[in-house]
Parts: sequence; structure tokens; C-alpha cells
Amino acid sequence: MTIIVDGFGGDNAPLEIIKGCAMAVEKFDDIEIVLTGDEKKINEIASNEGISMERIDVVHAPDVIEMSDHPTELMKTKKGSSMAVGLSMLAEGRGDAMISAGSTGAMLTGATLIVKRIKGVKRPALAPVMPNADGKFMLIDCGANADCRPEMLVQFAHMGSVYMKNVLGVENPRVGLANIGTEETKGDELRKAAYELLKNEPNINFIGNFETRDIAEGGVDVLVADGFTGNIILKTYEGVATMLSGKFKGVFKKNIINKLGAAVMLKDLNEIKRSMDHNEYGGAPFLGVRKPVFKAHGSSKAITICNAIRLTREFVSSNVIGKIAEDISESGQNE
Amino acid sequence: MTIIVDGFGGDNAPLEIIKGCAMAVEKFDDIEIVLTGDEKKINEIASNEGISMERIDVVHAPDVIEMSDHPTELMKTKKGSSMAVGLSMLAEGRGDAMISAGSTGAMLTGATLIVKRIKGVKRPALAPVMPNADGKFMLIDCGANADCRPEMLVQFAHMGSVYMKNVLGVENPRVGLANIGTEETKGDELRKAAYELLKNEPNINFIGNFETRDIAEGGVDVLVADGFTGNIILKTYEGVATMLSGKFKGVFKKNIINKLGAAVMLKDLNEIKRSMDHNEYGGAPFLGVRKPVFKAHGSSKAITICNAIRLTREFVSSNVIGKIAEDISESGQNE
Repeated sequence: MTIIVDGFGGDNAPLEIIKGCAMAVEKFDDIEIVLTGDEKKINEIASNEGISMERIDVVHAPDVIEMSDHPTELMKTKKGSSMAVGLSMLAEGRGDAMISAGSTGAMLTGATLIVKRIKGVKRPALAPVMPNADGKFMLIDCGANADCRPEMLVQFAHMGSVYMKNVLGVENPRVGLANIGTEETKGDELRKAAYELLKNEPNINFIGNFETRDIAEGGVDVLVADGFTGNIILKTYEGVATMLSGKFKGVFKKNIINKLGAAVMLKDLNEIKRSMDHNEYGGAPFLGVRKPVFKAHGSSKAITICNAIRLTREFVSSNVIGKIAEDISESGQNE
Repeated sequence: MTIIVDGFGGDNAPLEIIKGCAMAVEKFDDIEIVLTGDEKKINEIASNEGISMERIDVVHAPDVIEMSDHPTELMKTKKGSSMAVGLSMLAEGRGDAMISAGSTGAMLTGATLIVKRIKGVKRPALAPVMPNADGKFMLIDCGANADCRPEMLVQFAHMGSVYMKNVLGVENPRVGLANIGTEETKGDELRKAAYELLKNEPNINFIGNFETRDIAEGGVDVLVADGFTGNIILKTYEGVATMLSGKFKGVFKKNIINKLGAAVMLKDLNEIKRSMDHNEYGGAPFLGVRKPVFKAHGSSKAITICNAIRLTREFVSSNVIGKIAEDISESGQNE
């Protein structure tokens, strides 16, 4: 299996990306990596840092798409970027999956326009897997589609269920509709219409409306939202978690007494940190396109990239794409 | 000034409500309270608990609107409830403001239908004041209107600004549009249209789009959203804060060593708790109706009710209603 990795995407590229690829190759002996980006720089860094490039091929891409670039630049002035080159290779069958920690917008644009949608899929969706009390849940869509129609939310439910079952091993994933109350009649027009459709949809374990107050507590495996709402949830979640963790950290480091107090329970405090750590899950699959495309967190470290490769390997070998295509076709949505 | 308080709204009614009223009367010598609810029960409790009922009049209302009641029941089978009786008295001018910790839905329905809208206001909005690093900010709307048109969001911006300035003393309140990116072109159709209007709106200190990732950090005084999005933000905020606080609490109490560790910094830890405490701000004004209506948190204790009365007193004496009417009229929106 060949996994293409954007060597110049993310805050810590290219060093942490190269390291992550080397970690993954060592861990999984059935994969090969194609690393896109400035060949000279990559080889220099690998050599300086003593990173083995065994089973890692470098494909030269001189350019980089920056966070400040408009996503559509990927198709115009940045065709030679590490991201665009990788996506084109994927579309041409010169790899089985693609991972990038670069600009989300550019990645979504490129995946949709270069790799293209699965037949019948109205809109691909970005679907991060996030921590909760149960361990993890998927939030789909999380920003790819700001305006959605009810039938798109139904497709998100299908795609999310297939991924959670096949890649993360969740039996019969519980699908909830992100809403402002649990009763059937709650929410705006979009939610009411989506509820009606989801309630009657086969092959979905729909558990009804799900209040975002409860997301951290668990009880849902696939949380369905339009991209605007999903992104609001994600960012509020991250913002509040960062702020509160910062407040506690401030107390723990305030003075010598507090430092000593915190030191005795350091292991337990680190466990909280670990449970809230997005690096554990590595990022977000972009579901609905013809090949596995995976967005790693912008601040990815080597371990994040290695985890992303692990998940993407599972994404490929469990044939999630084929199963999504089948599921969409069966539910008569590809007409 | 006469403030009407629903004696039987909320999880801790009537005892904590009665106590809160007594606290407020003692604190502010320019107010009188009208407490609605079962007269016999209220007097019994006051007598048993030794609560002075000086300047607290009880108006008998035999019924209670329950959380499980559909909001519209307030206008049908629950006309004799403590909430409906209070709102009717307010509409009739037998009081200057009304506070309830009962069902939000019923309160919004009743306020809109009994107290009625200010001329020109398209939709009243529920606007909780929440904690952040600056101290506090208002989130408007937070659930009264699930589906909104762009011009409603502009009115929310006006109403929120008037309240924050006059009741909470914020000079030139910064108005942000809750969105999934900071650039002008970000968001769904509603956000893009609202941005255009807000940008050109006089009497508003519009600072642009505001990402919910940053709400806890501060930087905004009035965060404008449709009721669906606002409610999602509020509940995600509360859910994540509760979950994380619970995790830390679990560590602090895990064993005797951790208990000792936490004990040395107890004061600092309590400061975090206090800063996140909704009881500090007492709840949410319902803006856009002809009289001050204030929704106290469902789990209100005596101190929450006392704070709600303090804010409502300010709400009345600063003539926020008159200023909102003026502002809406000036911006030509009451045609």
C-alpha cells in the first residue's frame, strides 16, 4: 500500500512530517510512503537528522500552499505545491491515500476538484474524530459545507457510520443529530427536515437529536451537523477546553506551594491532558471523495502524522470508500 | 420600583426564590417585590424558615408551569400559573419588571404574547451574559428564534449593545458576529448577508466576524448569533466546562495524596470555579419586549435570584426599553 504524505503541510513541516513517516514505516511493514515537497530540502533534513528514508520516496514539488493562500489557488498558481502534486498523484492512481496537515480549505477544494466525489455523494464532508468520555466520536460535517440541505445531512450520517464501524471498530455506530433540544420538534427548519429523513433512513442507527451540552459525556458515535454548526461546535469545544486547561495550569504553576501540590498528582493530571489530546486520533478523514484523503491537524507532530498514517492504512484496507459507495447506492441516493 | 418574581419557577423553587427576594429587599431599599405562586405555601415556608416578608407581596397563583409542559400551555391550561399571572400583571402595569427561573420556552412565549414586542422589533431575543477572560460578554440570541433572517441579527446587535452599555456599564460595546472564520467572506449565507448589513449599520461598534474558538479569551462584548447557533454555543460551552471541571475534580479527590495536593491551592482553585459561575451574572434578559423580562437560570439559588433582581433593577432604572425603542426607530427598522 502506498500512502502519499504532503511533506510541506502544517506548522511543523517538513521535519515532523518526515519523522512521522519514518516512524510509520518502521511500525507497519506493508506500507510505502510517497513524500511530496522540495526534494533537496527533504533529503538534507533527513540526512542531517539521521532519519532513514527506507520505503520513503520523495516526489519533487517545489511550491507550498500557504495558510494565507485562497483555497482555489491550489488549482491555479499553486499546481506545483506539495499538496496539489500529492492529490494529482492520488487521482492518477499513483498512491492509495493522501495525508496533509496543510490548509484545510485548500485540501477540501483540491480533494473535491482533483480526486472527485464518489458517485451519488452530494457533498464530501470533513469529519474529525474527537475525544469524549466514551473515548471518541465523529463530528460530521465540520466545515466543508457551510450551507446544507437536509438530504446532505443524511449522507453525512451514512458516511460517518461506515467510517466509525470499519476504521475505528465501533459496532452499530449511534448517529445523533446535533440540536438544541432532544425532542423531535426541536431546532430550526433544517434540523426538523433532517430529523424526518433520518428517522426513516435504513442502515442508520439513528438515536435522535443530541444536545451539544452532552457531547463531552459521550453517548453518540457520529454527530451529524451542517458544516457551519459543526465548525462552531468544534471551535467552541477547543476554545473552552484550552481556556479552562490554561486556568488550571496557571494555578498549578502560580507559586512554589502550588507547584508542589500539583507535583504529587502529576501522573493523573497528565492523564487528563492525554484524554483531551487531538494527537491521539490524528485528525479528520475527508469523506465522500473517491480515494482516502485525510486531514491531519495543522499543529501535527511526528506522532500525529504516524497516527494519521495508521488510521489511513485502516481507511484503505477496510475499503471504506467502496462501502460508502455501496451504502449511498443502496439508499437510492445516487440517482 | 416593583419587581415581579415567579415564586414557583426553577429547580429550587419556592424556597430559594423566597430567600433571594428577601436578600434583595434588604440590599436595595428602593424596590418592592411581588411574588407570584401558591400563597399558602409561600407564607408557610417564609414562616417556617424565618424569612422576613417585609416589602414582599404575595399574589396568589395556584398553578405551576412545569418543564415538561409545552410552552403554549401557558396561554391555555396554565393561565393560572405563577409565571402567567406574573406576566399578565407586568403587561397591565402592576409591576416594572418580571423575573422567572422557570421554563425558558414558556417564558419566551408568554413574554412575546402577553407583554408584547417593542414597536419595530421583529423578534425578541434571549441574551445570557456569560463569563470570559474579560469578565463577561452577551450572547444574543440564544434560543428564542431558531431560524433568523439577517435583519434580525442586526436588531440583536442593537438591543445587546444598549443593554451592555446601560445595565453592565460597557462603554461602546464591541459587537462580533459569531462565525467560523474571521474573514468577511466566511460563513453560511445568513452570516454573509448579516455581515454586509452590520458593516454599514450606524450606532453599532461592529468588530467583524468572531470565531467561537476565542469566546473564552474575550475581545467581544456582544456576540450576535441566530437562536440555533447561539444555543449550540451556550450548550457546548457549558458541556465542555462541566466535563473538564469534573475531570480535574476527580483527580483532586482521587486519593489522600491528591487531596492534600489540591488542599494547598484550594483558594486558587475556588477562584477558577467562581470565574466560571453563572450565578454571578444571574441569567439572561429577554430583549425586545415592552417591559423588562429576565430569565434566571433554572438551577438558581437565592444568590442568583438576588443578582437577577439587582440586574433587573438596573434594567428598569436605566430605561433600556426606551433606549432600544429609540435605537430601533432611529435605524429606520420600525417601519
